[in-house]
Amino acid sequence: MTSALVDSLRKGNRLALSRILSQVENGSPEGLAALEELFLVTGSAQKIGITGPPGSGKSTLVNALARELRLREPDKKVAIIAVDPSSPFTGGAILGDRVRMLDLQDDKQIFIRSMASRGALGGLAEQTQALSQVFDAAGYSFILIETVGAGQSEVDVVDLAHTTIVVDTPGMGDDIQSIKAGILEIADILVINKSDRPGADQSASHLRNMVEMGYAKRSHAGKHSLQDFSEKAAEELSSEDWIPPVLKTVASDYEGISELVDSILAHAACLHQSGKWRVKDQAAIRATIRHQLIAGLLKDFKKNVPTEQVEALVAAAQDRSISPNEAVRRLLAYNRSNILESSE
Amino acid sequence: MTSALVDSLRKGNRLALSRILSQVENGSPEGLAALEELFLVTGSAQKIGITGPPGSGKSTLVNALARELRLREPDKKVAIIAVDPSSPFTGGAILGDRVRMLDLQDDKQIFIRSMASRGALGGLAEQTQALSQVFDAAGYSFILIETVGAGQSEVDVVDLAHTTIVVDTPGMGDDIQSIKAGILEIADILVINKSDRPGADQSASHLRNMVEMGYAKRSHAGKHSLQDFSEKAAEELSSEDWIPPVLKTVASDYEGISELVDSILAHAACLHQSGKWRVKDQAAIRATIRHQLIAGLLKDFKKNVPTEQVEALVAAAQDRSISPNEAVRRLLAYNRSNILESSE
Repeated sequence: MTSALVDSLRKGNRLALSRILSQVENGSPEGLAALEELFLVTGSAQKIGITGPPGSGKSTLVNALARELRLREPDKKVAIIAVDPSSPFTGGAILGDRVRMLDLQDDKQIFIRSMASRGALGGLAEQTQALSQVFDAAGYSFILIETVGAGQSEVDVVDLAHTTIVVDTPGMGDDIQSIKAGILEIADILVINKSDRPGADQSASHLRNMVEMGYAKRSHAGKHSLQDFSEKAAEELSSEDWIPPVLKTVASDYEGISELVDSILAHAACLHQSGKWRVKDQAAIRATIRHQLIAGLLKDFKKNVPTEQVEALVAAAQDRSISPNEAVRRLLAYNRSNILESSE
Repeated sequence: MTSALVDSLRKGNRLALSRILSQVENGSPEGLAALEELFLVTGSAQKIGITGPPGSGKSTLVNALARELRLREPDKKVAIIAVDPSSPFTGGAILGDRVRMLDLQDDKQIFIRSMASRGALGGLAEQTQALSQVFDAAGYSFILIETVGAGQSEVDVVDLAHTTIVVDTPGMGDDIQSIKAGILEIADILVINKSDRPGADQSASHLRNMVEMGYAKRSHAGKHSLQDFSEKAAEELSSEDWIPPVLKTVASDYEGISELVDSILAHAACLHQSGKWRVKDQAAIRATIRHQLIAGLLKDFKKNVPTEQVEALVAAAQDRSISPNEAVRRLLAYNRSNILESSE
């Protein structure tokens, strides 16, 4: 059953990897088939999400991290997925990709992929998840997922990671505005990059205070992606297991990178020891199943309910003769009764 | 059928409005019932989305806009919905709300509502849409929807507006980074706020160039919210109808606000004239129906398929015995066959 391309990918062929990534991103039949097959050998890679405001030097930091991980674990491969959700319509991530590739092109155990738009697989989080699985199956041990900003889509993207790193710079404007409470809460590791600038120590101690005050990571996993699907929510590491460290780096000078990698590896060990690695893995699988289930239910719905029926009810709602809720009630009733009729 | 509370709201009672907004936000049965009833009298308000990076002075601009709209149209009411999706877990919008209320508290024809998290109704876009409908039914003619940042959730939030205003400040860092191509593309009106700062003219002409080069608004409506549901996509105004103006303001000094309100009113007139107002209205209704349909299909699914069945397949996927796709295929088959059995 295994295709030649999947075989090549499993043997470490970069061209095969690149082609399968494109197939998966485009949602082509080959891509979806490859993904199904590859999924069965995933589960070992550490997914590391890196997020923070524009200008915090994330790309330089991610490059330095990739190098350091390679130095530290010479027989392990590193993937970088650069996600730019602030540019949903155009390929905003492309330029950064080029610069990055130039910098890391000498190391064939590092693979970089940019992603600027939601593709055939749905939202950015689903897309990122699918690409991660391909890298995981291709034997990449560390998957660095870089995303810009601090909005909900970024939270969704990093939510699928094992380890989430939030990056900021010293006293950029107002600290409270720069690192929002919301984004702080998803951090496993906090990084003040460009910490050769004035105010780095104050920013670090300010963040440490916020962590101690309990603003940092607490149980929210499963809140979004699993909503309405199952009661089982993934539990986060409690503060007894892991207190998010606040680290200072100067990524451009490779300062503090070693300590950051120490923390990343320590966090993975901690997740394994506490059994939370498995919990996070399950949460990601559950989110994928939910997403695909919705797509399948809608597909079945379209088979059962003719478009004219849908359009007539949309028109009635637009005329304010019925509410959207009433339109939905009628569509659901029609869907149920039509399944019965078509089988008789 | 009409409840006393809905009656009070329709008569202009602010307390009733406030209570219904809370009920709707909480997704309580009273709230959902009120929303259904109120929907039937919506459709006349102009929804105006205002987005831009933190520090661009959006709140001050929105306050000034509310005042100017009231001056210009003294018998019309103005609502402000402040959305802060960068703080999904905590009430980040509350402080700004207090400051704002202090500033506008003398005008009882202005109503302000903050929203920091997705509530019972699903995503921020759905929540914002529901609150807009309440304001619309309560007789508010202008609904200003303010949201931070430039991520996908912000795009989703402003996508439901009739008129989208993108705000930035002169030469904040690198123009290209500050106003991303992606966010530019959703703008009906571009505003350089704080334009008493150096570089305002360059920023404005830079943006005008980008608009002329076609980076600005083109057909993307319906691309997200209607995906997979119906082939009918909403058409945007073509460049023959409307070219996004680039305006300079100093909101704190009330400079340029009158011109901005001119543009807002001109855009509404243009939407009505071209028939695109109706198209946008339908797109919003279609998105609501799609969202509620998915919730309903999942609810039906849960009735048909026992939790143990779901959990067994999630566990099998976690063990890598089957792919998530295979799990979903089995769940869908089970869902179909169980509908049949339960009706026999």
